[in-house]
Amino acid sequence: MLPAGPQSRAVYDAVIPAAEKGALLIDCSTIDVDSARAIATKASAAGFEMVDAPVSGGTVGAANATLTFMVGGSEAAFGRAQPILSKMGKTIVHAGGPGNGQAAKICNNMILGISMIAVAEGFSLAAKLGLDAQKLFDISSKSSGQCWSMTSYCPVPGPVPASPANRDYKPGFTADMMLKDLKLAQAAAQTTGQATPLGAAAESLYALMAAKGDGPLDFSGIIKMLQGR
Amino acid sequence: MLPAGPQSRAVYDAVIPAAEKGALLIDCSTIDVDSARAIATKASAAGFEMVDAPVSGGTVGAANATLTFMVGGSEAAFGRAQPILSKMGKTIVHAGGPGNGQAAKICNNMILGISMIAVAEGFSLAAKLGLDAQKLFDISSKSSGQCWSMTSYCPVPGPVPASPANRDYKPGFTADMMLKDLKLAQAAAQTTGQATPLGAAAESLYALMAAKGDGPLDFSGIIKMLQGR
Amino acid sequence: MLPAGPQSRAVYDAVIPAAEKGALLIDCSTIDVDSARAIATKASAAGFEMVDAPVSGGTVGAANATLTFMVGGSEAAFGRAQPILSKMGKTIVHAGGPGNGQAAKICNNMILGISMIAVAEGFSLAAKLGLDAQKLFDISSKSSGQCWSMTSYCPVPGPVPASPANRDYKPGFTADMMLKDLKLAQAAAQTTGQATPLGAAAESLYALMAAKGDGPLDFSGIIKMLQGR
Amino acid sequence: MLPAGPQSRAVYDAVIPAAEKGALLIDCSTIDVDSARAIATKASAAGFEMVDAPVSGGTVGAANATLTFMVGGSEAAFGRAQPILSKMGKTIVHAGGPGNGQAAKICNNMILGISMIAVAEGFSLAAKLGLDAQKLFDISSKSSGQCWSMTSYCPVPGPVPASPANRDYKPGFTADMMLKDLKLAQAAAQTTGQATPLGAAAESLYALMAAKGDGPLDFSGIIKMLQGR
Repeated sequence: MLPAGPQSRAVYDAVIPAAEKGALLIDCSTIDVDSARAIATKASAAGFEMVDAPVSGGTVGAANATLTFMVGGSEAAFGRAQPILSKMGKTIVHAGGPGNGQAAKICNNMILGISMIAVAEGFSLAAKLGLDAQKLFDISSKSSGQCWSMTSYCPVPGPVPASPANRDYKPGFTADMMLKDLKLAQAAAQTTGQATPLGAAAESLYALMAAKGDGPLDFSGIIKMLQGR
Repeated sequence: MLPAGPQSRAVYDAVIPAAEKGALLIDCSTIDVDSARAIATKASAAGFEMVDAPVSGGTVGAANATLTFMVGGSEAAFGRAQPILSKMGKTIVHAGGPGNGQAAKICNNMILGISMIAVAEGFSLAAKLGLDAQKLFDISSKSSGQCWSMTSYCPVPGPVPASPANRDYKPGFTADMMLKDLKLAQAAAQTTGQATPLGAAAESLYALMAAKGDGPLDFSGIIKMLQGR
Repeated sequence: MLPAGPQSRAVYDAVIPAAEKGALLIDCSTIDVDSARAIATKASAAGFEMVDAPVSGGTVGAANATLTFMVGGSEAAFGRAQPILSKMGKTIVHAGGPGNGQAAKICNNMILGISMIAVAEGFSLAAKLGLDAQKLFDISSKSSGQCWSMTSYCPVPGPVPASPANRDYKPGFTADMMLKDLKLAQAAAQTTGQATPLGAAAESLYALMAAKGDGPLDFSGIIKMLQGR
Repeated sequence: MLPAGPQSRAVYDAVIPAAEKGALLIDCSTIDVDSARAIATKASAAGFEMVDAPVSGGTVGAANATLTFMVGGSEAAFGRAQPILSKMGKTIVHAGGPGNGQAAKICNNMILGISMIAVAEGFSLAAKLGLDAQKLFDISSKSSGQCWSMTSYCPVPGPVPASPANRDYKPGFTADMMLKDLKLAQAAAQTTGQATPLGAAAESLYALMAAKGDGPLDFSGIIKMLQGR
């Protein structure tokens, strides 16, 4: 797992000429879609099957082999990669052709980053209005405001005992990692010409959180910034 | 159900002096929290029990008596209101003291408005990246991007057959109604001094949608604006 | 000068019945347009001429009698108010009928608040790119990025020696005051149905600055938040 | 003048090995800072002096030789480039070392893009509040809201007769060009880790304008979108 597109490109520039004939190439890095597709094209031209297979689930998922892999590549390549990835993960999804693993991850994580801030704003406003967090949780978790950020990862202590909010935002999934994924989403949005106003705003808010030194906290800790803590 | 705080204030200024002794007052309007609390204070001073009980669930919920009522008021007032509201709704929740019904509704709907735009942005970006909407749905609906806006009300046609996207965004819950609730949330945020950057951005985006004449569409139709349709 | 609409309404509810016949009423508060117009209507009904005349220029302008007054009211009322206001200010502008003094102030200050953040973002990005602040100032102050926030009130120390940036953001015009005006602008935007996405974003950013305790700093100090200082 | 970094890189990969000894290389493209610096490094390694010299001033400036060039490169390279650029432009500024011409341009244009939307929002809100555009112009152009976007390029017809608003937003400087520069600014912000929330929001708004098909209009035409026209 490499940090960004340029590193993956460089590594596969070295790997592809050196790999054994018939080898299956699996890149589990989270990188930009364009790089993933460029690497896949090179691999294919050299006769290799390849998948991009970014992962979610964090250190807990890795330890328990419950990771999710979002996989881009041909049917054949996916078929070969699946049994290997299954040893590390519980959910292995084929998202389509080359690069689509990356596309699925950044689209999902952009929705996640935005909805986490939404929940943090909602619970912060509720507190200011004298509405108890548990009450709002009881109502919204069964209503139209329901989302994973609330029901599985609530950014206020109490309603979801396992969430990082209950351990002073020890990660979990850091704000720095979320910021990285939101930057990838914005790069893709700019390249493709898609307007993503809330994705852009979420990226800015996580950049502000990182700037004040809270990047290593769990990403749900953005509620601290919203509350001036 | 009255359109806004000033109307509710005016009506209860007339109702309170004229109501029968012991009457229970139920206001199902969606209005600002301050107005709801001011009216409740006047009612209480005149010896009446009162609840604010805004509703969600739309015309379908009303026809089928499956509405949700979020109720603010004393335990005693809630106890008297519950059997009455149960004839119209399936879920009757006590959110706390006077005004808390309103607070719950605007916090929930602010989360809803933001997460709908998040989902619309995610599916729009996916389309531009060549990632099939059904694929993204299959992945995100079981992952950390999951939210009601996606799994019960998906803004693209296909994945959720009952969603307004499948009938050209015929409402449902109009963008104009969402805009009204987002304005109430912003008013509360400004009064209480809570920063809600994505709530503010969502309000602006629905205001743009209304300005171009699409306020009567379902609020999930904001995806059309994001896609330049 | 009263803090907000409700206080002005209450004071004039007391003043109007008690004022001497023929008195000219001048309200120099910065309040919401609707309140200013409601008070003016009451004054007019009672036979009084009145102007709303909010002020800008800060404590320095007050000490030196160089304030700017933006005045709303009839030609006749403005004619009577002008010589009085001239003793405190250098620029006395007639912005139109009742409430238009307030409208001019909040529209101007919304542009000001946004452009200050724009300049702060521009100079922060320049620093990260290795572009000297004085260089950017020399270029932009004579180019299409020129604005008062840059050329008269630059948020980085150096280019404009008199600006608060050179005295650790001692005000000047506090972030709390800017936030108040941006809230008035947002209230007006919501009431009139005008989308003001950057005005809304600016309000949120000043609310974040206030939440972290920097409301008493000069409003140009928002650059500290953008830079994580 | 090439459209983007990859094209400039490719052209100079061909030019550098083929150029005459002692040639001065001048790239007037507006491209990303990283590409400009990478090209300059290659040129320098091959023994060439080079400047990046992006331009502003539009087709009118080009016809009249009144363009502005923002130049990045060594003192020596700038000294050689200046007399050449002076034949096309009126203002030739040395912004610092390699890439700083690009940095100056994107920082300036990010401020410009934001302040244009600020002015458009201010005048739109004024109209809704019954405040005449000329009145707001008379007040703000001499006050703290003053900016080039207002006083030289006003987005409403009337106050500045030469502005594109008076010819139905015929460019001038298109929204598509502004969007390109805002994308470059966002790419630089993301690379350097600088939070630019209003820059990001401005980019999204111009992306929305382009999505609805108004990219070929002058960038001041964003007021039409804000007003639902």
